[in-house]
Amino acid sequence: MTELDVRQRVLAANEAAAAALRERFRARRTLVVNLISSPGSGKTTLLEATVAHLKDRFRLGAIEGDIATERDAERLRRLGIPAHQILTGGSCHLDARQVAAVIDPAGLGDLDLLLVENVGNLICPTSYDLGEDFKVVVLSVTEGEDKPFKYPAIFARAEVCVVSKMDLLPHVPFKLDEVRGQVRTLRPDGTLLEVSATTGAGIGAWCDLLTARLAAKRAGA
Amino acid sequence: MTELDVRQRVLAANEAAAAALRERFRARRTLVVNLISSPGSGKTTLLEATVAHLKDRFRLGAIEGDIATERDAERLRRLGIPAHQILTGGSCHLDARQVAAVIDPAGLGDLDLLLVENVGNLICPTSYDLGEDFKVVVLSVTEGEDKPFKYPAIFARAEVCVVSKMDLLPHVPFKLDEVRGQVRTLRPDGTLLEVSATTGAGIGAWCDLLTARLAAKRAGA
Repeated sequence: MTELDVRQRVLAANEAAAAALRERFRARRTLVVNLISSPGSGKTTLLEATVAHLKDRFRLGAIEGDIATERDAERLRRLGIPAHQILTGGSCHLDARQVAAVIDPAGLGDLDLLLVENVGNLICPTSYDLGEDFKVVVLSVTEGEDKPFKYPAIFARAEVCVVSKMDLLPHVPFKLDEVRGQVRTLRPDGTLLEVSATTGAGIGAWCDLLTARLAAKRAGA
Repeated sequence: MTELDVRQRVLAANEAAAAALRERFRARRTLVVNLISSPGSGKTTLLEATVAHLKDRFRLGAIEGDIATERDAERLRRLGIPAHQILTGGSCHLDARQVAAVIDPAGLGDLDLLLVENVGNLICPTSYDLGEDFKVVVLSVTEGEDKPFKYPAIFARAEVCVVSKMDLLPHVPFKLDEVRGQVRTLRPDGTLLEVSATTGAGIGAWCDLLTARLAAKRAGA
């Protein structure tokens, strides 16, 4: 068995687990979002703002993926929602079996919206379906406008691209138009949102998108 | 053969290739630095500043690892040094065989200092020795102070930690002291440098470190 064979076997097992998860989330009408970005792009901060906006209207929960530390799940639990930290050890991505294993023990089995924050990595998580409704890639303005074309797979697969830390735009040489163009090339039907969790700008539009997607899922769309 | 067996076989093959590279670099007295960070931490910008400071004194060259685009190598070639882009396709790290394969064709066989910029990823490149003298982890102040403990392997293995984008410190809630403490815990004998390629702060100290390490290597230390 070659390296490629093993990788294909791993991905096939993940696909099967993800399909079972997706069916489960469909039956419960739980909207599931898989957030992927570099370390430090502001995924957890975006989720904190999301929870603050939506927790009175919906049953929310979160799964946090990290190599080490419980820090991110603790940040979300502090806001009063169930949040489970999956520690991957050395592994660079979440996989569907890890997610399936924690849903019930973590009290995440009956939610309106499950927010899955992947391990900070723009590359490896791209290949692992977690049964989500859609992937969201987060890119902060401090990372440079060359990133979509440098990491094309995730920008092509993510239905939503959130450009974060917009409050820092005056302080960095970031060409937003170039990012818009690259994202449009890689994902013509995608949605690009510009947010700042610090100022709150754009958080409403992001939460509206989640709310609309949840309504569509409940309607069986 | 299990997934773990395959991974061990891949890493063993990489170790063998890295050992051959290291012997080759030792014979030529080429100092080799392997830069690892998240996407967008400023590795290429740091290298541009390094080249500007050192190119008149030393024979410099660079290898740039990316999933896609020739952009980073082009940026360094513009400064007048040989720079070769390794496009990894989907792969999330450089490996020693990729580096070995390009040294001669790219005219990087007889340098004082070879700067290797790994694929933007804080996780996977950590395990792949490239025959370097030392690893450098770059962390920008916009990424948050929790990163060393979240990605402990690279911060333990990197002899040098460069905290970059120091010019943005007034605009972000980054606790530098916490980073210093975490890095000291993970790598007690490591060196932490604070730089801003935008203002030039700290670039002299970084280049002094490279110069001293090159002198030591030439002296056979």
